[in-house]
Amino acid sequence: MNSVIETIQGHRSIRSFTDTPVSKEQLDTIIASGISASSSSLLQVVSIIRVTDQDKRAKLAQLAGNQAYVESAAEFLVFCIDYQRHYAMNPNVKPEFMELTLIGAVDSGIMAQNCLLAAESIGLGGVYIGGLRNAPDEVDALLDLPPYTAVLFGMCLGEPDQDPQLKPRLSPQVIVHENSYQPLDHALIEQYDQTMLEYYRSRSSNAKQQGWSEQITTKLSQESRPYMLDYLQRKGLAKR
Amino acid sequence: MNSVIETIQGHRSIRSFTDTPVSKEQLDTIIASGISASSSSLLQVVSIIRVTDQDKRAKLAQLAGNQAYVESAAEFLVFCIDYQRHYAMNPNVKPEFMELTLIGAVDSGIMAQNCLLAAESIGLGGVYIGGLRNAPDEVDALLDLPPYTAVLFGMCLGEPDQDPQLKPRLSPQVIVHENSYQPLDHALIEQYDQTMLEYYRSRSSNAKQQGWSEQITTKLSQESRPYMLDYLQRKGLAKR
Repeated sequence: MNSVIETIQGHRSIRSFTDTPVSKEQLDTIIASGISASSSSLLQVVSIIRVTDQDKRAKLAQLAGNQAYVESAAEFLVFCIDYQRHYAMNPNVKPEFMELTLIGAVDSGIMAQNCLLAAESIGLGGVYIGGLRNAPDEVDALLDLPPYTAVLFGMCLGEPDQDPQLKPRLSPQVIVHENSYQPLDHALIEQYDQTMLEYYRSRSSNAKQQGWSEQITTKLSQESRPYMLDYLQRKGLAKR
Repeated sequence: MNSVIETIQGHRSIRSFTDTPVSKEQLDTIIASGISASSSSLLQVVSIIRVTDQDKRAKLAQLAGNQAYVESAAEFLVFCIDYQRHYAMNPNVKPEFMELTLIGAVDSGIMAQNCLLAAESIGLGGVYIGGLRNAPDEVDALLDLPPYTAVLFGMCLGEPDQDPQLKPRLSPQVIVHENSYQPLDHALIEQYDQTMLEYYRSRSSNAKQQGWSEQITTKLSQESRPYMLDYLQRKGLAKR
């Protein structure tokens, strides 16, 4: 196993950081790594808002559901879909298609993962913050996001002050299908539920008593941020 | 610069492959790397369809806009949003929220980038195939995708049979903003247009005479796959 695969497969989300700052050289490397990512048709539709203002950090931490590490991490980056850039180059562009929002979301994931892996490879750690979508309008206003841009997620980065276990994932037999979609093998989910119950029992904090399937389907039986389509459409995106 | 950052920053899309197969061990490593990725709330909403059937490959290559490497690459993986898995566990789940489609798109990008980097780290190369969205219904039918799943993009993987240049990207000054969104600095775009014109002049194939901004805004002034929102909604996704 080479060091790239070790870094990738050794990923744990880090939510507790030391006070050590991320150096300019480290940050430049992380950003350059993100920008090296594949970009659909070279459209380059992602912007990153680096939040250094501590008042904004505190507000974002609160909006994300009181995730204190959003405030305390050495760096906090917000990944946004950005077609404002293209509109500023030519007001005839048509950013309103769902297709372009999909490209923005996929390409943000690709770019952000490059950033996270580059950070992890130099001894830093981080975590994605989807909680920014708890309050997209407030985050949007705080970061002065113009039309044709939309907030997607944040990322905390810093020197780890914890060393969590790897979190078990669904097995490749569940994730990978050959040639045709294969119906779910419920026995594999039962096995995974057991694995997750053991994982939750063994970890020191945030112990849970439910298996994965119960926990996740309970969550998905509720409404999931039902304002997101409206938010995107108000920003001029995902309209058709 | 460590080997992780070298791999990330050395990325070029590879569209020409030798006949050498990807070994089972290599593929297992690539898949395990994908599955190690962060997953929003551990929902695990991505499925990969590995296409080994040569008739399906030929059809997909055609649907993607006659991209022959979709047929000839050693491996072809199709990344899909998948809430069918959760529906099969509990029919009370509500996959119809735009929020969940965004999670599917972002998490597919994160997972796929882990796969691509793992492949690149062991001497393979690859390219994302957004062209599957030229004909989402046909791809969907070909892969027997059930409700609450949707095709996002493909990925060719194999041993490179070409050694293309790095493609220049927008500078960090364009991509990264501090605390607030900053309006576009048109001078940086003019510089990048010059850089891209030189890049296109220097490369042997597919020479282009336009700068980046003209090329991209011309593309974005047309309709972008205007059927994608309908497709997602017919699959039970992105409805509200």
